[in-house]
Amino acid sequence: MAASSTKKMIENAQIIPSKGVHRYTIIWIYGLGGNADGYTEVFIKMQPPNTRIILPRATKRWVTILGRQYYLESWWERDDACVEEGTVIMDKLRELIDDEIKLVKNASNIIIGGFSQGGCLSLTTGLTYSKQQLGGIICCGGIFINEKKLLEKISEYSKTIPILTIHGKKDDIFKWNDVEAGLELLKQKGVGDNMEVLAEDDVEHIISPQGFDLISKNTMEKHMTSGIEDAWQPVPASRSARNTINPIRRIVDRMKITPNPAKEMISLSIGDPTHYGNMLPPVEALEAIIEAVQLPTCHGYAPSFGTLEARRAVAKFWSRSDYILKPEDVILTSGCSHALEMCIDCLADPGDNILLPQPGFSLYTTLCQSLGIETRFYDLLPDEDWKVNITHLESLINDRTRAVLINNPSNPCGAVYPEEHLRKLIEICEKHHLPIIADEIYADMVFSNHKFYFMGILSENVPVLSCGGLSKRFICPGWRVGWIVIHDRHNLFKDTIKPGLADLSSRILGPNSVTQAALTHILFETPDSYYEDILNQLQNNAEYVYRSLLEAPGLQPTMPQGAMYMLIRINPSEFRDIADDKDFFMKLICEESISCLPASVFGIDNFFRIVLSTPMEKTEEACQRIIEFCQRHAKSVS
Amino acid sequence: MAASSTKKMIENAQIIPSKGVHRYTIIWIYGLGGNADGYTEVFIKMQPPNTRIILPRATKRWVTILGRQYYLESWWERDDACVEEGTVIMDKLRELIDDEIKLVKNASNIIIGGFSQGGCLSLTTGLTYSKQQLGGIICCGGIFINEKKLLEKISEYSKTIPILTIHGKKDDIFKWNDVEAGLELLKQKGVGDNMEVLAEDDVEHIISPQGFDLISKNTMEKHMTSGIEDAWQPVPASRSARNTINPIRRIVDRMKITPNPAKEMISLSIGDPTHYGNMLPPVEALEAIIEAVQLPTCHGYAPSFGTLEARRAVAKFWSRSDYILKPEDVILTSGCSHALEMCIDCLADPGDNILLPQPGFSLYTTLCQSLGIETRFYDLLPDEDWKVNITHLESLINDRTRAVLINNPSNPCGAVYPEEHLRKLIEICEKHHLPIIADEIYADMVFSNHKFYFMGILSENVPVLSCGGLSKRFICPGWRVGWIVIHDRHNLFKDTIKPGLADLSSRILGPNSVTQAALTHILFETPDSYYEDILNQLQNNAEYVYRSLLEAPGLQPTMPQGAMYMLIRINPSEFRDIADDKDFFMKLICEESISCLPASVFGIDNFFRIVLSTPMEKTEEACQRIIEFCQRHAKSVS
Repeated sequence: MAASSTKKMIENAQIIPSKGVHRYTIIWIYGLGGNADGYTEVFIKMQPPNTRIILPRATKRWVTILGRQYYLESWWERDDACVEEGTVIMDKLRELIDDEIKLVKNASNIIIGGFSQGGCLSLTTGLTYSKQQLGGIICCGGIFINEKKLLEKISEYSKTIPILTIHGKKDDIFKWNDVEAGLELLKQKGVGDNMEVLAEDDVEHIISPQGFDLISKNTMEKHMTSGIEDAWQPVPASRSARNTINPIRRIVDRMKITPNPAKEMISLSIGDPTHYGNMLPPVEALEAIIEAVQLPTCHGYAPSFGTLEARRAVAKFWSRSDYILKPEDVILTSGCSHALEMCIDCLADPGDNILLPQPGFSLYTTLCQSLGIETRFYDLLPDEDWKVNITHLESLINDRTRAVLINNPSNPCGAVYPEEHLRKLIEICEKHHLPIIADEIYADMVFSNHKFYFMGILSENVPVLSCGGLSKRFICPGWRVGWIVIHDRHNLFKDTIKPGLADLSSRILGPNSVTQAALTHILFETPDSYYEDILNQLQNNAEYVYRSLLEAPGLQPTMPQGAMYMLIRINPSEFRDIADDKDFFMKLICEESISCLPASVFGIDNFFRIVLSTPMEKTEEACQRIIEFCQRHAKSVS
Repeated sequence: MAASSTKKMIENAQIIPSKGVHRYTIIWIYGLGGNADGYTEVFIKMQPPNTRIILPRATKRWVTILGRQYYLESWWERDDACVEEGTVIMDKLRELIDDEIKLVKNASNIIIGGFSQGGCLSLTTGLTYSKQQLGGIICCGGIFINEKKLLEKISEYSKTIPILTIHGKKDDIFKWNDVEAGLELLKQKGVGDNMEVLAEDDVEHIISPQGFDLISKNTMEKHMTSGIEDAWQPVPASRSARNTINPIRRIVDRMKITPNPAKEMISLSIGDPTHYGNMLPPVEALEAIIEAVQLPTCHGYAPSFGTLEARRAVAKFWSRSDYILKPEDVILTSGCSHALEMCIDCLADPGDNILLPQPGFSLYTTLCQSLGIETRFYDLLPDEDWKVNITHLESLINDRTRAVLINNPSNPCGAVYPEEHLRKLIEICEKHHLPIIADEIYADMVFSNHKFYFMGILSENVPVLSCGGLSKRFICPGWRVGWIVIHDRHNLFKDTIKPGLADLSSRILGPNSVTQAALTHILFETPDSYYEDILNQLQNNAEYVYRSLLEAPGLQPTMPQGAMYMLIRINPSEFRDIADDKDFFMKLICEESISCLPASVFGIDNFFRIVLSTPMEKTEEACQRIIEFCQRHAKSVS
């Protein structure tokens, strides 16, 4: 028999692929008249996890069995040719074993087994494999090929290798007496400290169900799952989880920085106005919660898109004398983040894109990437009050663009766009038939001489999803009460986006029912003076910081027009030893115990963002320290 | 010139594809010496949405202009050949128009225009197109090809078709005087009620910027966007929104049924125990909220996965003396639905599958389908206390299976699985290396003689994500406080699923901060008697309903072991006129004003689910009516 023909047997092998990562291999050699297809079913049932099963295929030929001729798949032509032909096959099997070890990295993860002729081959190949100790040998209805040169090749590993021998005592092909004698001979050669023998009384030349059971339980399962950590790979997270990346965490959390222990920490980094206790929710809101929680009717499930009463309150709150919103135009959400998530999820499929501002709030990117939606960033112009570079925005539009997200008043820029600019943005969206997602969580949070315009009220033809919530205006970001207000004068969302948002809301349902019950009271009973006071604090802080930092060498503050943030430009060329915004951020914490946010997290370099909601005394102290810090690091005036 | 060459001009046309759905077509024929590439840029800038622009290409050849020879792209060889060659081209243009009309469905959505030779061709082709009225004709620097047989072909539509003529008075190719005369002639033929003429004083044979502006504004934009609803197709919802389907809504909401006005409505359909006011949150929980809301520290952003204090409370609440959970093992979520959403989203990618119980809570399907994850349903066995058909479950596993979801105690079955059964389920999951999502929102909600076992505590090797929350045990489903408890003894989730869940939580942040602050108090200060009373009410209801409905012909109730539901089998063969569960449901509302849920919404036919949280007097009344209903519809005993 030619070697090429043998090679074909191995190359044509039936392979049952591994379930999970391939870490184990079982090579199973069937007997005379057996075939790979027949075993495939059996092995698929027994297949342990992470295990590939290989069934090499024998050639169909005329063979002599007990004096009669049969046309069968056989590893050799006549029994007396088994040594000669078997040797060629065993060489090939050893190559196969070598290949598999390369894949699974560990010889002890390879088991070789077989029945009848295949049992003989597996036992003889396994015991003469001398490179490393294999995981085990299974020999059913077969014997070691009793030939001097093979006996001599028995390897040192054969003493300890696990061997399972299964044999019927009524086997008339390989007689049990011969098998016993063979095993005795092997023992004399030092083989089989680790051998288990199942000799079955009334069994002929077959593998009995008990035999298969033993193969499955005592060898394959025991072997393949010994030590669960080893066999069970870490469970991978989905793409959406892996792609949910918060750039603030990515950049900031990786910088391990210790503040200066001699100076009290002042945090100007987090957009949480409640942090210092100088800004808290209105008393009316707390009263409304206390009242609502005592109602027996406010503990059950609300409709997933919010109670009628709560939606009516939001609709009324944002209506104008000439622009009336209805409860059906409102969907309540678990915070403004949830509102943004739902809008993005509802408008775009994976592979589509949404246009986002840069610099911009990092959650937009986090949400889009998590949902497999491409992010395309349009520039905001630092020297034009952070207005949108409309030409740039338009150049980004392609046939997979599904929406433009506009954030006004804006985080991190503190920009408040004038009516004219908003109209231009609407015009571009109308031209390209793109709906607008308006992040208006800072609606009405504008300083004197500026005015806030709702995108949805300005827009005649472009449908707008406005995202908002209680968080910023009523200083309760932890409450998680947000909403989507749908502006859709031409019913372009009527049968698509509107029901789509309602359906998406049914995934997790909306905000806490108690706060929903309190919403009307919160929105309409909070006196104007509460909000005026908040705005005054923000504006005073903004003006103070702006004036102060004009004095700081290397910095260039921009006076914000609203929201609660200021972006300050850093000119590294004016510093001796500050490379960029991240470097500034790190050194400022180390030396001055002041945390800000490097604007790299918002997609623009060499700016930093500070929040303007700190108490004035903290603001003053922080500015003082920043100025000293800048002076210390500034290049000396030549 | 051969027709085949003309055909090539059209077939080789430069096509600027439509942005958005193709609903309009502009065919633009350039002039002698012009070319498609030059116009492409101009037209891309002017291109209205939903509009394809086609620029047929002329052949380069030697042409005679004012007595001189030029090698240029031209529609004909000599001006005096324009009728002959032009006729062939115009036939082809008409075919092109026919084709485009087929695509956009409306002849008035087609505009034909051109400059110079192209202006002549467009005006002549447009006015002689006699099948339908086109959207408009633009003729720049050109005239009608003044030929008798063409003048005779001017169509009836030419009277009203919008025509824009732009011509320079200093044009030395087509003289303005000739153009004026041509227009006069056309008027005599009845053409041009709807014609606009721009004759520019100092303009030669070109299209001036003003001309382009007029083409863009007054013709293309006005035409293409007349009536925004018409031009702007409804904005489609994303696949995830379209696939977010609540089967309860699908099946139940579509059945428009009026209850019997003579009988008070009794709702046994919604799993909201607060509905009738007999089950309400514990006083301790309300007090905890009232206390927490007055703390200045509980209004800001909590970490997205929950405050340390709240996570510590959940960990402690579910720890056992021999099984200690840590705060790091807990992630707080906006209700148990959000917990399930995060687990499913984190474990599986679109195209993967998760095994779900059938009958089972419909939200599992809603979430999987919304995320593009395949649902595979394993059978629960009605005659074996709704245990899992484990053989069936195992047969569903393939290499895209990512998790098995097990709901215990179960909705809608009311099953509570014994330890032995849960261990078998864990064994199968271990064999196939599949993590378990355990929906344990009804944890500990079991009737006497039954015991609840946590999957995560029983499981040695299989990592388990247990989803739970306050909703059912503390009767406050509207509060949206849920959690994921991560059981992962072998750290198979450590670097993958655990951070993945934390990342996913950053998309919308966890539950309301006030309830987080109240959580420790709620979990540990609520007396046992509160919960014992709830369980007693549920069990009393269950026993009453079970005993009563045993008497009802055609029904076969199963005594639940826990949770708050009972599934009752309907045998349609025992009824005269009840086809199935949906029919039962409809007729029961119509005749008895009792709403239940047909179990089709849970994936099993001919059962119905009722909730067991109603006050006893309602339960009694409901059972009475159901029995009478069944008696009325039963086949008479033969």
